[in-house]
Amino acid sequence: MTLHPFDQATTLEPQADGTWLGHTSPAYANMVGPFGGITTAQALSAVLRHPERLGDPVALTVNFCAAVADGAFVVQARPVRTNRSTQHWVVEMLQEGQAVFTATAVTAVRRETWSLDEEAMPECPPPHDVAPPAGRAPMEFVKRYEQRPITGGMPTVWDGSGDSSLTRLWVRDYPARLLDFASLSALSDIFFPRVFIRRSTLVPVGTVSMTVYFHADAQQLADTGSGYLLGQARAQAFRNGYFDHTGQLWNEAGVLLVTTHQLVYYKS
Amino acid sequence: MTLHPFDQATTLEPQADGTWLGHTSPAYANMVGPFGGITTAQALSAVLRHPERLGDPVALTVNFCAAVADGAFVVQARPVRTNRSTQHWVVEMLQEGQAVFTATAVTAVRRETWSLDEEAMPECPPPHDVAPPAGRAPMEFVKRYEQRPITGGMPTVWDGSGDSSLTRLWVRDYPARLLDFASLSALSDIFFPRVFIRRSTLVPVGTVSMTVYFHADAQQLADTGSGYLLGQARAQAFRNGYFDHTGQLWNEAGVLLVTTHQLVYYKS
Repeated sequence: MTLHPFDQATTLEPQADGTWLGHTSPAYANMVGPFGGITTAQALSAVLRHPERLGDPVALTVNFCAAVADGAFVVQARPVRTNRSTQHWVVEMLQEGQAVFTATAVTAVRRETWSLDEEAMPECPPPHDVAPPAGRAPMEFVKRYEQRPITGGMPTVWDGSGDSSLTRLWVRDYPARLLDFASLSALSDIFFPRVFIRRSTLVPVGTVSMTVYFHADAQQLADTGSGYLLGQARAQAFRNGYFDHTGQLWNEAGVLLVTTHQLVYYKS
Repeated sequence: MTLHPFDQATTLEPQADGTWLGHTSPAYANMVGPFGGITTAQALSAVLRHPERLGDPVALTVNFCAAVADGAFVVQARPVRTNRSTQHWVVEMLQEGQAVFTATAVTAVRRETWSLDEEAMPECPPPHDVAPPAGRAPMEFVKRYEQRPITGGMPTVWDGSGDSSLTRLWVRDYPARLLDFASLSALSDIFFPRVFIRRSTLVPVGTVSMTVYFHADAQQLADTGSGYLLGQARAQAFRNGYFDHTGQLWNEAGVLLVTTHQLVYYKS
């Protein structure tokens, strides 16, 4: 049996000093270096596999410090504080002894409480009524996801005509794979840069920082299975070299799994 | 001349080992321990005063690991990666040698580019047409801010009747103080817990993680001066012990200064 490309990419080898050794995956290559979502999942995997881990991820912030070079990397995941039901992590990914990526994470044991989703899933046609895009960006990682853009897909005409940065799409791993916290963290980075759609203009970009709040627990991930997620993202401000976006991922049943935000460098 | 309470609270003394020594401030006390916004500002101040700092803050994520005890603390601010125009920081605050707070920050030198605010300031009456609240929560830090709630103020009847978590308010330091990155990071934490308003019910709460994206540069802070900020916050999901909120701060001229998000523990 062949491992799913995602499981191959997030394989980490424990080292004698408590760190983890991993390798970038050609299957998730972006224009330059890897897809940020896979780097995120690789770093989170070091937390998930740590023998002292308490609970499941509730918050994750990742910072892309430098281009990740193709090849080996080391991940240090350090539980800096363990409380009764929460645990705080500081994570660094190193190449040639230099930090290329940092993260903080919070894991927690959840208890059932009063719960409510205030941000409702927008009305959208079901996944199989939405066609995959006619063309596809040439980056290898794009082939690792099945995407069905409902609104705000990648522009096909680059004429500076955009008037909104809102995107909605159905998305899941390709081939389909049971959702887990690592793959959900990668899917949180699936939205192409908002500046492309707002301006219908291609400019150099790079995500600087991303935060993911996991509202779903393990049972809700299991309920989602290998189904589609509805992703939504929209920028709030583009200002002097940096823009943000705010986004959400729901499962087909309308459960809000993740809210996510990122800050992205752009040149123009 | 007396220092403003905010400047007193964020005073840090450089130590021989490159760390910073600070003290919690009774002026910014919350129910238990300090207001999270002042802890955030104290940690960011260690970055802002670091002799190797490059540029101004663009992204900041803070994690509240444990209750901060009244008294002294040490802040370590480490530039883990310095690029041509960006710098990545890992910050830890320690008491008795134990981490009570962690943060990552990105500072950057900005260049002028095409810019646009997609999230427009909502229509609101001007600050002086909005009355301060009749009653005021008893925590000391509340006296350090002038707040004029427009909608979604602190409930006055705790009868479980809430139907929205949206708050809009005018806010600034009290006494008035010229805005800077540190005070803006504190103001980003001004929103009382969304679960109070959504349910009109008081439950134990605590912010776990907060992210601030600074869209404003130093000139836009200077333009804001000691004017009011319009704050807006709304929860997206309350789920099994944790809820998030997404928020914005604009200046009176309608410039979006900050977008911010947080994850908050709640008991019920």
